[in-house]
Formats: sequence, structure tokens, C-alpha cells
Amino acid sequence: MAEIQRYTNKITLKWRTGGIFQGFFSNLLTFCNNLLQFNLIDSIQNEGGCDSKMKALGRHILAEIYDCDPNVLNDRDLIEEIMVKAALEAGAEVREVAFHKFSPQGVSGVVVISESHLTVHTWPELGYAAVDVFTCGDKVNPWDACNYIAERFEAKHMTASEVKRGVFEKPVKVVNF
Amino acid sequence: MAEIQRYTNKITLKWRTGGIFQGFFSNLLTFCNNLLQFNLIDSIQNEGGCDSKMKALGRHILAEIYDCDPNVLNDRDLIEEIMVKAALEAGAEVREVAFHKFSPQGVSGVVVISESHLTVHTWPELGYAAVDVFTCGDKVNPWDACNYIAERFEAKHMTASEVKRGVFEKPVKVVNF
Repeated sequence: MAEIQRYTNKITLKWRTGGIFQGFFSNLLTFCNNLLQFNLIDSIQNEGGCDSKMKALGRHILAEIYDCDPNVLNDRDLIEEIMVKAALEAGAEVREVAFHKFSPQGVSGVVVISESHLTVHTWPELGYAAVDVFTCGDKVNPWDACNYIAERFEAKHMTASEVKRGVFEKPVKVVNF
Repeated sequence: MAEIQRYTNKITLKWRTGGIFQGFFSNLLTFCNNLLQFNLIDSIQNEGGCDSKMKALGRHILAEIYDCDPNVLNDRDLIEEIMVKAALEAGAEVREVAFHKFSPQGVSGVVVISESHLTVHTWPELGYAAVDVFTCGDKVNPWDACNYIAERFEAKHMTASEVKRGVFEKPVKVVNF
């Protein structure tokens, strides 16, 4: 059960308009999602994956970061520094970096890490940034990077969800290279 | 209603183990997700977003691509070519490219486009690739890129879901730069 818990989604959702129906559907969605995860993981455990310890290859956080400092979101060099530091903060190993500043505003960029990637797209005029942190393995916690970025963007709030990537539902033949 | 339909998630899920409970929970999850989308979009339409036409800033496809050709998945240059062509195939404008080959196998890479990004991480030994296609605006269809990649990877099957990014639930003050 502890093993299953470890691989279920951590979903944080804040509903600012917060009606009773939104709350109900949000809870129902989370409930169904967790049940689905339990069901999937159970099937892997019963059938045996390509590696008995490998339930999912990766963890992917999709973060919607709102009410950030617009000046931070429009500063290409500062965002690159924040994203690289976020990767290091989470214990990842940086491999490649590519950032781009748009005219009249906005920055897009990516940090390729040994453990997968971090990406960012900013809309300074809206104070909004779409951030992804995708990590593989047990050494790196993607939430550390995500929280670091939100803090450095001076965000007033964030909604983020974690998606499992590379979940195998039946045994896979491993090819040797 | 047509406007709402346009922004709801297109979710394609294939359950290979396919028990009755998985089917039930999958349908329930999709149902709840759609209800939640309707609810969210409705709230934006009622309250007025930062732009009445802007329901979501971006569309993000998360694709699990299985049973690919292992040799393709281990070829850095070929993957870079495929990912860049996929971006162009979808009508996107390529801005930055960064790819990395791991030892003993595997490739990670990203194509930053004017409309957001494409990323790939491959596990050639498992015939698996995790692909993301994130696009903004109406000109580019992320599914075109996604399907092109799956075809070039010679994938036998793919499960993919589309997530809306940058959905605003209440009016946003736009900052001028």
C-alpha cells in the first residue's frame, strides 16, 4: 500500500471561483484519477512490468503559475538563471539550455537535464507562466524545482498536477544495445 | 456550444489490459474531466476573461508512444530531424533546438517554437518515447506534429491526452510593456 501511495498523483487544485459544483467535480475527478492510478498500478504489479520496481518511468508536473511579477517574466536572462537553478535545486544534472525572448514580450525556454526536462513559457502581460518539470528516477523531486520557480517568479498562486509518464501495463521485452 | 466543444479535451486512452473496472473508471474520469472543462469555460464566459476569445492560451499534448523502432529511438540526429520536421509539419516556427544523446542509450531533446515547444525522451531498450507537443494560438494543430512523430518512430500504438494550459477563471489585468 505504501508502494502504491508513492506512485499516485499528488494533485493540487485551487478553484478561485469556487462554487459548490466546481468543488464537487474537482473532488470527483481527483477521486476517479486516484482510483484509476490504483487500478493501473495494481495491474502492473499483478502482471509484472519490464522491471518489478518500475511502476512509472517519469513524473511530470504541469504547473499554471499566476500573478507573477511581470518584469521577472519578461527578463530572458533572469528566467534562464531561475530555471537552471531550479534544476540544480532539485538535484538534477543540466545537459542543454535553450531560451528565447519574444517581441514585444514573453520568454520561452527549456533546460534539458539527465533526468528529462524543465520548460517555461511566460505571458508577462498576464502575469502568467506555464511551467513543466519532467523528471525520471528517484533522486530528483520535481516539486522542489516547481516550488522554487514559483517563489522566484513571485507568484501569488499556482495550480499544478503530477502526471505519470511511461507506465507499462504489460511486460515489455528489453532490447540490448 | 460549438465554442465550448472546441476547447474541451480530446482524450484518447487505450487500455490494453481492459478490465470492466478500468473501462468504467476511464469513462468516469473522461466524463468528470469534460464536466469540469464545461464548468470552467462557462465561468470564464460568464465573468469575462482577459480576452473574450481566449478560453485557454495553449494546448498541450502528452503522448506515450510505445513499440517504436529501437534503432530510431537511439539515433540522436534522426530524432532531431523528426522533431524539427514535426514542428514544421504542424505549421510551427522553429526558434531553438537542443538535443542530447545518453550513454549507453536514449535521447532527450527539445524544439522551442514560436508557439511553445516539442520535447522527446526515448528509452530505446523499451521501445518507448515520451513526447510533448505544446502549442499556442489557432494556427498550429499539435496533433499533426504528434501523429507525424509516432509514424516516423514506427510506433505500433500511442496513448495521448490533451491538456488546456493557461485557463483563466476570472478577469486578468493586462500589463502594457
